[in-house]
Amino acid sequence: MRKIEEAIKKIRGIDKDLLKEAQARLDGLTKPPGSLGRLEELAQRVVAITRDKNPRIQNKVIFTLAGDHGVVEEGVSAYPQEVTAQMVYNFLKGGAGINVLARHVGARVVVADVGVASDLEKHQALIVRKIGYGTRNMVKGPAMTKEEAVRSMETGMEIFESEFTKGIDIIGTGEMGIGNTTPSSAIAAAFTGYGVEKVTGRGTGVNDEALNNKIAVIQKALKANKPDAQDALDVLAKVGGFEIGGLAGIIIAAAARNIPVVIDGFISGAAALIAYHLEPKIKDYLIASHCSVECGHKVVLDHIGLKPLLDLNLRLGEGTGAALGINLVEAAVKIMTQMATFKDAEVSEGISQEVQA
Amino acid sequence: MRKIEEAIKKIRGIDKDLLKEAQARLDGLTKPPGSLGRLEELAQRVVAITRDKNPRIQNKVIFTLAGDHGVVEEGVSAYPQEVTAQMVYNFLKGGAGINVLARHVGARVVVADVGVASDLEKHQALIVRKIGYGTRNMVKGPAMTKEEAVRSMETGMEIFESEFTKGIDIIGTGEMGIGNTTPSSAIAAAFTGYGVEKVTGRGTGVNDEALNNKIAVIQKALKANKPDAQDALDVLAKVGGFEIGGLAGIIIAAAARNIPVVIDGFISGAAALIAYHLEPKIKDYLIASHCSVECGHKVVLDHIGLKPLLDLNLRLGEGTGAALGINLVEAAVKIMTQMATFKDAEVSEGISQEVQA
Repeated sequence: MRKIEEAIKKIRGIDKDLLKEAQARLDGLTKPPGSLGRLEELAQRVVAITRDKNPRIQNKVIFTLAGDHGVVEEGVSAYPQEVTAQMVYNFLKGGAGINVLARHVGARVVVADVGVASDLEKHQALIVRKIGYGTRNMVKGPAMTKEEAVRSMETGMEIFESEFTKGIDIIGTGEMGIGNTTPSSAIAAAFTGYGVEKVTGRGTGVNDEALNNKIAVIQKALKANKPDAQDALDVLAKVGGFEIGGLAGIIIAAAARNIPVVIDGFISGAAALIAYHLEPKIKDYLIASHCSVECGHKVVLDHIGLKPLLDLNLRLGEGTGAALGINLVEAAVKIMTQMATFKDAEVSEGISQEVQA
Repeated sequence: MRKIEEAIKKIRGIDKDLLKEAQARLDGLTKPPGSLGRLEELAQRVVAITRDKNPRIQNKVIFTLAGDHGVVEEGVSAYPQEVTAQMVYNFLKGGAGINVLARHVGARVVVADVGVASDLEKHQALIVRKIGYGTRNMVKGPAMTKEEAVRSMETGMEIFESEFTKGIDIIGTGEMGIGNTTPSSAIAAAFTGYGVEKVTGRGTGVNDEALNNKIAVIQKALKANKPDAQDALDVLAKVGGFEIGGLAGIIIAAAARNIPVVIDGFISGAAALIAYHLEPKIKDYLIASHCSVECGHKVVLDHIGLKPLLDLNLRLGEGTGAALGINLVEAAVKIMTQMATFKDAEVSEGISQEVQA
């Protein structure tokens, strides 16, 4: 727990003066003021997060953490549990959606097993830091112990720190875990106070009957465990997941290092909720890449106060939306650092009395 | 006119069987069916447009056409007319927003002067195909003759064809022309029947007073010219612009060659409206990159039946939104062509009775 507390202590509010300075720079570029909209916001934010007036987005890392969930025995997913392990192999072979999109945007994917239910074959690119062989069934009691919850977060922090030594300019969060929209909905309900049915979707694609069962399962788990929304670690332990805790740790570690965090979909959003409830200053370090089809995602983003960049009906996870979001952040930073100014390009500025922001 | 008619005759409906075939392929990839949302739609569409089951998005070209507008003498813009020429030089030097974003996505920018009000210095990368030195003030009569309207479109087609010989897999539309949101609003009002105030925005950033003047100017121009919405060339001639006609020609030429067209913002939308009203089959070749801050843009997209990919409060033009859109199309095609199948990756498929699309 000390490791988490120490990292949280290092998280400062982002530098608001730098936001203004970056905006002034953007306003001197050869375009009407504000005409690149959210790209301008992103560029400003990266400056204020990194405290670097000339940031570069070169080292892009997507952390894809895998873990299993005891609650799958309640029939909450459309896929069997072995798919978690099979997909980890797919990640390692470069054939999954996240591999394709990470290559497309020039990001590297860091794959870690923090709680897959089986022992995976060794692979040079696979980080194995299991907290356990899947969580326990949260309908019958806490998904994990408080100690495991702390350890999942600290493990995430260590995975980040180890990668940070190789160079990181921006990160994206990703995950794989059959059944993991179920703990994510439970976390969302616990923190936001929304009814379970408002934050529970079809995940990988269950039918109406299975969706109703999933909602009932989550309600049962919340009733059985009574997670305390004032205690983020309690929520994580009782109704969370190892990969969700790991991502929460990665988010905190990144913010403590002034690194922008692009969050992916609903499960990453649940991890962000945990990090945010541990330290609300986290919010300014988070960039929401997209709004998932999972209805709980919008609730989570609204709760934290984040506006997603993309709305493409994605619901794959793995970090796929984050990869696309990172690409937009990189575009935004290049706009700020590579465009010509009115002065350099000898372009006339607006007729002052008519121009307005 | 014969050139336009011949190209239009070549435009076929896209191949609906190929749409289904592409979807079946996407459903065999290691992800829940449909979980990549609009990326899957894009991949299908590229297959159906190109009639190529394994398309590659390598040669990406953004056509940025420049032209001036006589109507600027009515005080409709926040920038002086000389900015059009200055920005063309900026494009040629690589310092504008479109240059930065085109480099980011690996596209080349083709810059053409189809109607700048002054003679530009020669530059090896500048195509000079002037229809005139700016259009005439549409408040006082037609912006151009019918012959000039035809010529602007044919010029766009020729610019496309010349570039097509170098290889093109996808195009984006872009433009530069101080005052060109004014003809775009006039075109939008003429075709959609919406009131001028519903399709007129602040352009580069005029204040309330100037916005009201702009609306009055457009109303006056429509009243003076009475463009016939049943005759797209009449609308282009009376209240259009040379770069708008040029882009309409490029769109038609691209569709005739089975090339996907990613349209940029409001002005590109006005060009797409002209092309669409000449040949409604054009619609299926168009991909709307983003929804502009200009209120008329959404009206135009709805009228054609297009749903934008991005909503980032952009309003720069030049092709900047199209560049970002092209990047998403490329990502989509890579998903379809590079992801592993369930079979290849030995990943278990969904539990059939529970899975639904």
